[in-house]
Amino acid sequence: MAGGKRESDGFGVTGRVSIVGAGPGDAELMTLKALRLVQSADAIVHDALISDEIKACFPAHSRVFDVGKRAGDAASTPQAEIDALLVRLARQGLHVVRLKGGDPLVFGRGGEEALHLAERRIPFEIVPGVSAMSAAGAGAGIPLTLRGLSNACTALNGFGPYLERIDWDALVRLGGTWVFYMAKGSAETIVARLLAHGADPALTLAMVESASLPGQRVHARRLGEVAGNPLPPFGAGPAVAIVGPSVALLEELNPMARGIHADVRAVSDLSQAAR
Amino acid sequence: MAGGKRESDGFGVTGRVSIVGAGPGDAELMTLKALRLVQSADAIVHDALISDEIKACFPAHSRVFDVGKRAGDAASTPQAEIDALLVRLARQGLHVVRLKGGDPLVFGRGGEEALHLAERRIPFEIVPGVSAMSAAGAGAGIPLTLRGLSNACTALNGFGPYLERIDWDALVRLGGTWVFYMAKGSAETIVARLLAHGADPALTLAMVESASLPGQRVHARRLGEVAGNPLPPFGAGPAVAIVGPSVALLEELNPMARGIHADVRAVSDLSQAAR
Repeated sequence: MAGGKRESDGFGVTGRVSIVGAGPGDAELMTLKALRLVQSADAIVHDALISDEIKACFPAHSRVFDVGKRAGDAASTPQAEIDALLVRLARQGLHVVRLKGGDPLVFGRGGEEALHLAERRIPFEIVPGVSAMSAAGAGAGIPLTLRGLSNACTALNGFGPYLERIDWDALVRLGGTWVFYMAKGSAETIVARLLAHGADPALTLAMVESASLPGQRVHARRLGEVAGNPLPPFGAGPAVAIVGPSVALLEELNPMARGIHADVRAVSDLSQAAR
Repeated sequence: MAGGKRESDGFGVTGRVSIVGAGPGDAELMTLKALRLVQSADAIVHDALISDEIKACFPAHSRVFDVGKRAGDAASTPQAEIDALLVRLARQGLHVVRLKGGDPLVFGRGGEEALHLAERRIPFEIVPGVSAMSAAGAGAGIPLTLRGLSNACTALNGFGPYLERIDWDALVRLGGTWVFYMAKGSAETIVARLLAHGADPALTLAMVESASLPGQRVHARRLGEVAGNPLPPFGAGPAVAIVGPSVALLEELNPMARGIHADVRAVSDLSQAAR
């Protein structure tokens, strides 16, 4: 493995912070590097999205801080406190693993935390992880790109207030696959905005909850059918909404995939038109 | 780990195909699941982008097929032959691992291969991997999204002929971070198209080659400076081009990161304006 040899570069005897993507939740979708860093960390500062299965990999000797943040959850730790905690632990000479769901630099606030550390001259590294969109695509059977059908894939912030900042006209014109992160509770708004800006009502929306985890759920609707046939309520897991010309292929790719708990009735409403 | 218990679901005594993302090249950025599947595979069918370090993980008992495809390389195996090979091996009752660089569903043709298998009733699964954009962001020090600066990230096909299919007006209006995959040799065209459609010449382009590997190289220029100061020639590794308002932050985030071989002169030309 590559990591060991480079271990001494750039980091002195002072502490350091590894900003690490843990992937979508399934502990087997952690990278080898993430597991190695977690198992050797002096301190682990982790999000709410870190699964119990991943927490079971934490070594007994490490100090563990749960700073779980959920969108709109007032009980979460403010970002400024998290930043300060990372600096304080590193200045104690510790190797701190800042463990985040998915990839740290795609809606993970890894960039903000890295800037905070860089400004204070705390050595750090960023370790990429499997992002939610890759996990949702693989778990639901949705090609995020597909030759001749979808030549681009855009990840957007799907949390309520952020939807107002999207240039929906430009998004619809650009085409390709649109993946809205943190989209729980936003499906109806997303669909309404897309349709109002000219998206094809025959395009499929898939809501993928808890991608990669045993509780994974997938619900699919054509955009034009969401108003008359609302999506069922969701559970406690994180959810992404995926819309695009290749999404309807889940009808062919989903039943063969493993671990899927799809809304089969909804999925089977889709025609084969996308081929 | 979660994988073992689900192993028997959906797969009979016939063969099956695991379409697996190997990540960007560093063997430590493989997922635990990818390593487990590779090490138990009867047959491995892999791309050119699979590094020697990853090949060293292949078990002695497995049959290995290198179907390395490079864009524009006439010596590569046609996609139809790869599809047929996967079916033939699976019908021999083998567990086939189709190992791809990055993530299988983001410019990895994993969707095409999955559809081919689904149509022939070959059991398959898709295992996500760390995509090139996450590896390039982490390796170069570029937040792909950043609150207040970049609220979206679009992955596009950066290989020559595909650039003509992009709605550049819509892309520029949408904003956020643009990641062009397979962008070697395309930087000048990408910059020209972006500027012709109204992109800010002060935006930074970063070319990231061989992200995560020891030979990683990063070159950065403001869009308005590329014409008068061409990018240096690249090596043999794959490259992505990243453009957006958060790209200039690599000036602050890159020097602290490990394993970077950046064009420091070019990087230091950038101002602090992005903050």
